[in-house]
Amino acid sequence: MARVEVVAVEGLPEVRPGDPLAALLAARATFAAGDVLVLAHKVVSKAEGRVVALTEVEPSPRAVALAEPWGKDPRQVEVVLRESAELLRAERGVLICRTRHGFVCANAGVDASNAGAPGTLVLLPLDPDGSARRLRAALPNRPAVVITDSFGRPWRHGQVDVAIGVAGLAPLEDWRGRPDAGGRTMRASRMAVADAAAAAADLVRSKDGGVPAAIVRGLSRHVTAGDGPGAVALLRPPGEDLFV
Amino acid sequence: MARVEVVAVEGLPEVRPGDPLAALLAARATFAAGDVLVLAHKVVSKAEGRVVALTEVEPSPRAVALAEPWGKDPRQVEVVLRESAELLRAERGVLICRTRHGFVCANAGVDASNAGAPGTLVLLPLDPDGSARRLRAALPNRPAVVITDSFGRPWRHGQVDVAIGVAGLAPLEDWRGRPDAGGRTMRASRMAVADAAAAAADLVRSKDGGVPAAIVRGLSRHVTAGDGPGAVALLRPPGEDLFV
Repeated sequence: MARVEVVAVEGLPEVRPGDPLAALLAARATFAAGDVLVLAHKVVSKAEGRVVALTEVEPSPRAVALAEPWGKDPRQVEVVLRESAELLRAERGVLICRTRHGFVCANAGVDASNAGAPGTLVLLPLDPDGSARRLRAALPNRPAVVITDSFGRPWRHGQVDVAIGVAGLAPLEDWRGRPDAGGRTMRASRMAVADAAAAAADLVRSKDGGVPAAIVRGLSRHVTAGDGPGAVALLRPPGEDLFV
Repeated sequence: MARVEVVAVEGLPEVRPGDPLAALLAARATFAAGDVLVLAHKVVSKAEGRVVALTEVEPSPRAVALAEPWGKDPRQVEVVLRESAELLRAERGVLICRTRHGFVCANAGVDASNAGAPGTLVLLPLDPDGSARRLRAALPNRPAVVITDSFGRPWRHGQVDVAIGVAGLAPLEDWRGRPDAGGRTMRASRMAVADAAAAAADLVRSKDGGVPAAIVRGLSRHVTAGDGPGAVALLRPPGEDLFV
């Protein structure tokens, strides 16, 4: 019977720049080949030193202009702008950005929640697919690794976790051209496996940052020996978008 | 330890209009209070007779005009238009619609895959929250019920399953105002629990329609005695959207 299990990895300490994340994880969980480790990006970013102290940020005039009407901290807006390739919308104090990696999300993924210390911002990893590959290589039995962030979506309330870095998991499962149960060829069906794994893991995690990691078992048919194309394969080029 | 389990409900027959869906499910799975039954909408739509034979559809001139340049069946486009409150985009043969319920998706959820018979289209249920409530009431031990569809998303390739009908599951978990692990108040964090459950269930289902249902166990903290607000609580009113 098809079955998937999601188990939280509990007891991780607050992670600091330079901490050996793979070793911290391996001390708290057992990984088997075919497992998928799903990890909130914040612990990865912190271990990689992708944190910024607000006191070290000099806001640009543009950041001041965007921050002021909404009572936001212009230094935080400055960091958001630095992380953005493009500012898609700035309304009611919310900045919708295309990050330098190509992800479209609020505030370019820059966040003060669960930052570990007051006055600190956590950024997305510089190269989340690279981070996932390094982590995979350093973990016993090389589980697939998915690094996530919580993204808001158009048209729907609430956030869901999506994959921003992937190693060893096929990010998409392509059903196009295969027959359905009635023998009819299916169109336009590609399942975003890595995003579904990210969302599933979020069901056992906690948003206060206390449980940033989970293991998803039962997805070994999507786990690959090589690291694969990574989460960049999930990015739809702007010109190809059919929704917006 | 926090743990969630997703188990496929296997062996469902092809469902036809008028079939007793709850009885068919109860014969193939054991439900406990606190379980969440996640169901692809197609079996619900078929049981409710929300299917259309193409031979009975007379396309309007607008449907013909939209279909012709892309070699699409104007009768199918006609059905899509009838199911739509608003056509948001029509490009390269893809119709992005706001359905009469308020969901934004391709083709207003109208689909010929897994329709059961050639020349047949499956529509979304008329009132998916009502369908979920009726199903819940008819199932042993009243598990929560989530009815799903696979939606494409802006900016990202692939589809993920989202909740279009919900009964007995809190669709959103609100973390706003709660402290993070560092004592800092969190902003703008509402987890779309019902969408995460939908995505998790999709990991054990199959896109060929052979396994349309799964049970998610371990979410009882989100399961409510009353049926709750349903999936309509996930709909962001068009004027409030920050992304598009």
